[in-house]
Amino acid sequence: MAETDSKPGCFVGVDLGGTKILAGLFDSALVLRGTAKITTKAQRGPQAVTERIVRCVRDAVDEADLAMDQVRAVGLGVPGTVDPVLGQVIFAPNLGWRGVALKQPIEKLLGVPVCVENDCNVAVLGVQVGELKGKPRNVVGVFIGTGIGGGLILNGELYSGAAHAAGEVGHMALQMNGPQCGCGNKGCFEALAGRTAILQRIKTAVSGGEKTVLTEILEDLDRLRSGDLRKALRRGDKLTQRVIQDAARYTGLALANLANLLSPEVMVLGGGLIEAVGDEMLEVILQTLKEHTMPGSLTGMEIRLSTLGDHAGITGGAVLARQLSQ
Amino acid sequence: MAETDSKPGCFVGVDLGGTKILAGLFDSALVLRGTAKITTKAQRGPQAVTERIVRCVRDAVDEADLAMDQVRAVGLGVPGTVDPVLGQVIFAPNLGWRGVALKQPIEKLLGVPVCVENDCNVAVLGVQVGELKGKPRNVVGVFIGTGIGGGLILNGELYSGAAHAAGEVGHMALQMNGPQCGCGNKGCFEALAGRTAILQRIKTAVSGGEKTVLTEILEDLDRLRSGDLRKALRRGDKLTQRVIQDAARYTGLALANLANLLSPEVMVLGGGLIEAVGDEMLEVILQTLKEHTMPGSLTGMEIRLSTLGDHAGITGGAVLARQLSQ
Repeated sequence: MAETDSKPGCFVGVDLGGTKILAGLFDSALVLRGTAKITTKAQRGPQAVTERIVRCVRDAVDEADLAMDQVRAVGLGVPGTVDPVLGQVIFAPNLGWRGVALKQPIEKLLGVPVCVENDCNVAVLGVQVGELKGKPRNVVGVFIGTGIGGGLILNGELYSGAAHAAGEVGHMALQMNGPQCGCGNKGCFEALAGRTAILQRIKTAVSGGEKTVLTEILEDLDRLRSGDLRKALRRGDKLTQRVIQDAARYTGLALANLANLLSPEVMVLGGGLIEAVGDEMLEVILQTLKEHTMPGSLTGMEIRLSTLGDHAGITGGAVLARQLSQ
Repeated sequence: MAETDSKPGCFVGVDLGGTKILAGLFDSALVLRGTAKITTKAQRGPQAVTERIVRCVRDAVDEADLAMDQVRAVGLGVPGTVDPVLGQVIFAPNLGWRGVALKQPIEKLLGVPVCVENDCNVAVLGVQVGELKGKPRNVVGVFIGTGIGGGLILNGELYSGAAHAAGEVGHMALQMNGPQCGCGNKGCFEALAGRTAILQRIKTAVSGGEKTVLTEILEDLDRLRSGDLRKALRRGDKLTQRVIQDAARYTGLALANLANLLSPEVMVLGGGLIEAVGDEMLEVILQTLKEHTMPGSLTGMEIRLSTLGDHAGITGGAVLARQLSQ
């Protein structure tokens, strides 16, 4: 890609998580040149985390053997509702933040323009541009990890609704009077298929005397990670199979609702659980999706597991940063 | 509103239904000047229905003491999936139509530009412009009658997705393995809260020996209309109360999903059932909505029963027609 500006066009994408910060330096063609990762240390408060974000950006730039004056802009994804115009976090439950300004302090420390968005919005943008080459105008992203988040690209634009709160696919209710969700409501998709819900079901079964290799793999079930579920599946663990297939069914149901409602060209699944056991879930997901979608409405619709993995967020951050400097 | 063109700026909106056709003549300020209504006679086939649409348009114009040469354009809502670019009906189950061209034949017969859209898309446009004065950029419309349809205005534009099939709120699955829906799937919102579902529940209860004034009001329960439900509620009928409150709960759940997913400024309810018994449903709808929505995400969101009633469709048709001639 030809540079129209004498200043090299590099962009940094940052994915701020509850436990870690990941930053990636991308060139103008969105090729990843270097990454850095540090812990978030959310308990130290917003100012400390802001400084850690800045440190992580500098580390990624250094990792690519570049200097900050070669970076045009930074795009940051945050796990919560974000006002992108003000560059403020409205509410980020995993960080314990309400009303935290990020854009201005980071701009001041780094000396480049910064844009801030919800992490799932950023991730779906990363998938649309980095993985799907920007072709589809309507993309729905569903990211399943500890919780479940989503991002919507509609009519070619990131859609965040009136209150910057759209895309909360994890809190789509799939069952009247279903299991309690962390958000306070009942029967949410996240409370039926997120990793926390999966752990809860496994613990309940184990308490009821059911056997599982997970108790051999892990000393403490509360430390369950998605990779442990993959190991258990590979060892033919019946309980894990059943719980994962249930989660897959609810995932298929959620995708059916999204297909019926939004009729996108592409629905993409990502997040830690999908990276670890998405291949094992896919058949049941597709079957349930088919059973609950309007006849014909899946024609021409692509359902895929994201290949970007951890890099969806940083790629999307770089896309936002590039949009900002155009 | 000043006319910038010497030709008077009148527009006709048409709502094509399974049993009747309604047309309205609107002036350039979208004030309704005359209406006409005739039966659809779908069994006579697409060509006959097309001629009846044309007759209904001419009748509405005549009703307003005007002539066709004072009409700039016609906007038509059709109960099915529509390709608005080609002006063709892709699939309209209630009419038994697949691949029926409407735009060109009507343009030929009337001599004015015609645009065709899905009826619920047209209705939500009617509400946004005619009732909400075009202010909100994100509006979700849910229309509950025999079935349940929806329309989405997102980022200020009508959203119909990749396959012109978006907005199928009635086929959002709210219950895994729920009651069978007419679309072939199970647990759809329509199969839980549409008038056909309500009738089914009443018939099952009556077969089981339950008493209801509906059997006094109607000779044949299969002829149940929304107005009969209103009469039964006013007479304190316990069965009707229970069934309507159940429908209200599922409506609240569906609205919660839409709020969590799309975070619009306004969610509007319309359609025959809502016109008849919406006031009686509203409290339960709002309570369930509140119970299933993310904390804070209802802040600033308006939930309303449409005041346009039957006129949402023809108003939206006129809005489309006006857009076409601008």
